[in-house]
Amino acid sequence: MYSFVQTPFIIGTFICVIGTMPSAFAAGEHKQILLDVANDKFTPAWEVSHKEWGGEKWSVKLRSLHGGKQEGVQVIDVDNGVMTFTIVPTRGFGVWKAKVGDLRLGWDSPVTEIVSPAFIDLNNRGGLGWLDGFGGWMVRAGIASVGAPGMDGVPLNLHGNIDHTPASYVDVRYEGGKEPKLVFKGVVNDTQMFGPNLQLKAEISTPIGKPEITFDDTITNLSDAPQEFESLYHTNFGPPLLVAGAEFIAAVSKVSPRDARALEGDLVDWNKYTGPHQPGYTEQVYLMELQGDKNGNTSTMLKSADGTKAAVMDFNIKELPAFSLWKNEAPSRTGYVTGLEPATNFPYPRPVERSAGRLNVLRGGESHHATLVVRALTSKTEVTAAAEAIAKLQKSEPAVLKTPLNEQK
Amino acid sequence: MYSFVQTPFIIGTFICVIGTMPSAFAAGEHKQILLDVANDKFTPAWEVSHKEWGGEKWSVKLRSLHGGKQEGVQVIDVDNGVMTFTIVPTRGFGVWKAKVGDLRLGWDSPVTEIVSPAFIDLNNRGGLGWLDGFGGWMVRAGIASVGAPGMDGVPLNLHGNIDHTPASYVDVRYEGGKEPKLVFKGVVNDTQMFGPNLQLKAEISTPIGKPEITFDDTITNLSDAPQEFESLYHTNFGPPLLVAGAEFIAAVSKVSPRDARALEGDLVDWNKYTGPHQPGYTEQVYLMELQGDKNGNTSTMLKSADGTKAAVMDFNIKELPAFSLWKNEAPSRTGYVTGLEPATNFPYPRPVERSAGRLNVLRGGESHHATLVVRALTSKTEVTAAAEAIAKLQKSEPAVLKTPLNEQK
Amino acid sequence: MYSFVQTPFIIGTFICVIGTMPSAFAAGEHKQILLDVANDKFTPAWEVSHKEWGGEKWSVKLRSLHGGKQEGVQVIDVDNGVMTFTIVPTRGFGVWKAKVGDLRLGWDSPVTEIVSPAFIDLNNRGGLGWLDGFGGWMVRAGIASVGAPGMDGVPLNLHGNIDHTPASYVDVRYEGGKEPKLVFKGVVNDTQMFGPNLQLKAEISTPIGKPEITFDDTITNLSDAPQEFESLYHTNFGPPLLVAGAEFIAAVSKVSPRDARALEGDLVDWNKYTGPHQPGYTEQVYLMELQGDKNGNTSTMLKSADGTKAAVMDFNIKELPAFSLWKNEAPSRTGYVTGLEPATNFPYPRPVERSAGRLNVLRGGESHHATLVVRALTSKTEVTAAAEAIAKLQKSEPAVLKTPLNEQK
Repeated sequence: MYSFVQTPFIIGTFICVIGTMPSAFAAGEHKQILLDVANDKFTPAWEVSHKEWGGEKWSVKLRSLHGGKQEGVQVIDVDNGVMTFTIVPTRGFGVWKAKVGDLRLGWDSPVTEIVSPAFIDLNNRGGLGWLDGFGGWMVRAGIASVGAPGMDGVPLNLHGNIDHTPASYVDVRYEGGKEPKLVFKGVVNDTQMFGPNLQLKAEISTPIGKPEITFDDTITNLSDAPQEFESLYHTNFGPPLLVAGAEFIAAVSKVSPRDARALEGDLVDWNKYTGPHQPGYTEQVYLMELQGDKNGNTSTMLKSADGTKAAVMDFNIKELPAFSLWKNEAPSRTGYVTGLEPATNFPYPRPVERSAGRLNVLRGGESHHATLVVRALTSKTEVTAAAEAIAKLQKSEPAVLKTPLNEQK
Repeated sequence: MYSFVQTPFIIGTFICVIGTMPSAFAAGEHKQILLDVANDKFTPAWEVSHKEWGGEKWSVKLRSLHGGKQEGVQVIDVDNGVMTFTIVPTRGFGVWKAKVGDLRLGWDSPVTEIVSPAFIDLNNRGGLGWLDGFGGWMVRAGIASVGAPGMDGVPLNLHGNIDHTPASYVDVRYEGGKEPKLVFKGVVNDTQMFGPNLQLKAEISTPIGKPEITFDDTITNLSDAPQEFESLYHTNFGPPLLVAGAEFIAAVSKVSPRDARALEGDLVDWNKYTGPHQPGYTEQVYLMELQGDKNGNTSTMLKSADGTKAAVMDFNIKELPAFSLWKNEAPSRTGYVTGLEPATNFPYPRPVERSAGRLNVLRGGESHHATLVVRALTSKTEVTAAAEAIAKLQKSEPAVLKTPLNEQK
Repeated sequence: MYSFVQTPFIIGTFICVIGTMPSAFAAGEHKQILLDVANDKFTPAWEVSHKEWGGEKWSVKLRSLHGGKQEGVQVIDVDNGVMTFTIVPTRGFGVWKAKVGDLRLGWDSPVTEIVSPAFIDLNNRGGLGWLDGFGGWMVRAGIASVGAPGMDGVPLNLHGNIDHTPASYVDVRYEGGKEPKLVFKGVVNDTQMFGPNLQLKAEISTPIGKPEITFDDTITNLSDAPQEFESLYHTNFGPPLLVAGAEFIAAVSKVSPRDARALEGDLVDWNKYTGPHQPGYTEQVYLMELQGDKNGNTSTMLKSADGTKAAVMDFNIKELPAFSLWKNEAPSRTGYVTGLEPATNFPYPRPVERSAGRLNVLRGGESHHATLVVRALTSKTEVTAAAEAIAKLQKSEPAVLKTPLNEQK
């Protein structure tokens, strides 16, 4: 089945597909450019699957959303045979949601629409406008700044521009062979005159038939002048992984509370979940340095209460040395969610990170690269094995500090 | 006549209408969903009339506007046989203008386009951005806050988000029978993470062949936590109703000036109009409690100078206990307009209303309901009868206070 | 060749052109309305050339851009036979770029896309959001205010609204005869309730076969009340005109530094270019009064290092009495650019201009008119002649002041 038409209204789509018919069936690699602003190429809707490009069962579908706050947002629905997920080029090439069988990766935000950046004012509510569109699963924060709003020469809004910047280039590749995969490339420009001139090249890939997704990001300073940057992967989970009894597992070297609120409970079972709690509950954030193998590779895991399900995140602490655990065990309809957030630094305001020596700088033309793999585990065997693998990375006892990180001497 | 095509450019519309052909001619109820974001349904243009759905002469036409600041705005033009009006789903499901014969309900704003929320920054001019798109007849203010900009934990902009929030769901029904009517339903979500999670379900209905429109609004707190809300119907009139000699009539229990400016003139003839005035004139606002019948039902009226025309607003003081009269008798091309504004509370900044005990709270899942009926009168007989009906509600002398409401002990 | 279709997706375009087929081939004047919001007329794409409307080789092409931050932006590509340029109705009817052979008029901004106003927050970065979309060649600043952000009753953002206001009306005319030309008319409304109510009527014309473009602007106060206005033509040049050795030439009556930074170098060779410089360089701005002929006509020129190329700007100092030279000799990829900026006043914050008596006021209904002609010179002969013409305007020695203008007594 090859359905070209998203809705009956967009007859143009039919013409579109004829005009950009994918290359003939063949083994090996196929590629389709879906968006290329510099070359005036735009695709409102498009589909491809294994039937056209070969291999086991998979499909890719580009759609344009219309109406409400979603007007003009483009999404790419991906099905790799066992895992489905939705990339949002219009929202910084993030991933709105993912699913493996009945294991949903994502959460129930009060924000249910994939809001277009056109309807978002990042400076709203004193710089908290980022929250007005916050509902995705893997939401990038940055790439010039992350963290709470505050002054840094100019006022910085919560978590920067990248999640509200539409991609300028998007393509999709199918790479056949022994380990066939789908690769989606997005280019997002966080550039201003007299401001940051940073470019994100993001590759999101998924192996056919595996419950796994890889984020391979390169941030480049396009300017001649040095430029600070900050990058944080705001990866958010609600039920079914997040329920009372769920647990965060990592090879922690040092964990600190972000603030006085995170000190409540005295860091006993800081990595365990007991919610959802009553109205009035406020978020708790724990800031960590992790241990990795000799190459710096590490894993963190969010484990379901019964140990039969988990999401594992693999990354390298040389690329992403600062890990934040955001516990927002609020009532179910108020944003019940936890965030596992590997990052280049912690989400304090940028001046705090600069003072602490955690703020990275890219020289003109220089790039920073990071890879993040998320695996969805759906059996006790897998979960147990992953937990054991993380335990092996734990070479020393974790230091559990009782002072907020930004107050430590 | 059944014209499907708004402009010759949108050929897709033709397909659309075929794809969603209204159900066969029949007595009774017909319904068409025009927008349903949650189910990926969007209609760029659509029309129906009595020819398809039956009854006396009426018509409904959905159009998408393009170009200028109107790009992407959707409007529904309604003709019930004697009254025409234009609903704007993209602008909080308000009504831009209405007309009964040569009686226009609406005004001449410097803002002549139905500006898309995408081009509005509510935080512009220190929180006055709401005014950059202000030109409609019935404009809702709220629903988390109304009133002047100010701090309340976070900065609040003038009159809240609702008028600049696109509807997420829209349908139209025709209900036949003895008193046939058209009913338009819109759902507008004023929801943010770590913020209000309020939903407006608005029904706008009009009886076929009568100069009358009803707003039936339900505001629901979708969250688990209690949530303050404020709702004000900013209903705006210019000529021909507003001219020198026009009069505001209501069963006033107590009227107070909003501020020192409203005290000028010492509240003599505060309910009469003498403008338009010269440049330099500034607005005057009067805040009232009204008297109703035993059920709380009341009416207010804006009466033309010669008493042959009027707009009557019927509502219930249990639902909408605070009434503001906004007199902006500015020069004709500077926004010559008066606003009759029934509301849940007064348009002082939210902290003032909270302190005064006028701020309502919805518990998690709870709703607030209000009905507002606007009738256009076009004969001396009708106007006189309506004035007499209001007079009957006046059981005691109105208290005319000479101190701004927020300074009264 | 008459290609109607921008991309194969927009089949509607084909219908569009049939529906709006230009009038039959004929001598004399032809006209096409491309946008008229007040009359619901919008054209997504359209083309015309000498083949349809007559005369020597020329063409005009209206396109709608899609994807990235350009979504929904409309551009008009003009080719007059020797000069090409791109008008952007969606961005205040400015000109993004122009070219005569290999002489590019424009610059390389970090902002490479023609960003839609929907994606711009002018209040971003403390009022510097204008820079987030700054990449054009001839960018209007104003028309209610220009200059750095600051408070003036309400907070004013950098350079006002006009560059981020979509035009509400656009047409194109071809005027045949002895000196045939193309004329583009745009109407841009900078109007708010309780705010400025200013309208820009802009005519951009170009003679067929000549490297010349004329901006003929009328700003009208649509209100009844007096209204201050400010208008500045931010005309920006990078290479090939701007290189080390390039020179700014004008009949200067008085030149002052804008601030301490512009005093560095003690105003020796303030009109010569030595960059691009190293990272860390910051802009220098020089503020001038110019000398004109007996009617007030004057010219300024940006001359290439070898004197074989130049851009000449002709205008009248009665209309545009304040000229700013913006030198931003930053590294090449950080915005290497100079701005020649004739204006009604200087780009200090509006209160400064008001105090200095330079701020103009339009009475209700009154208009301000200005004409600016830009000529591209591509031979030493032309450049030398133009320099001599400017030299003739210099009747007295220029006063070179060593105190910032706003500190002068």
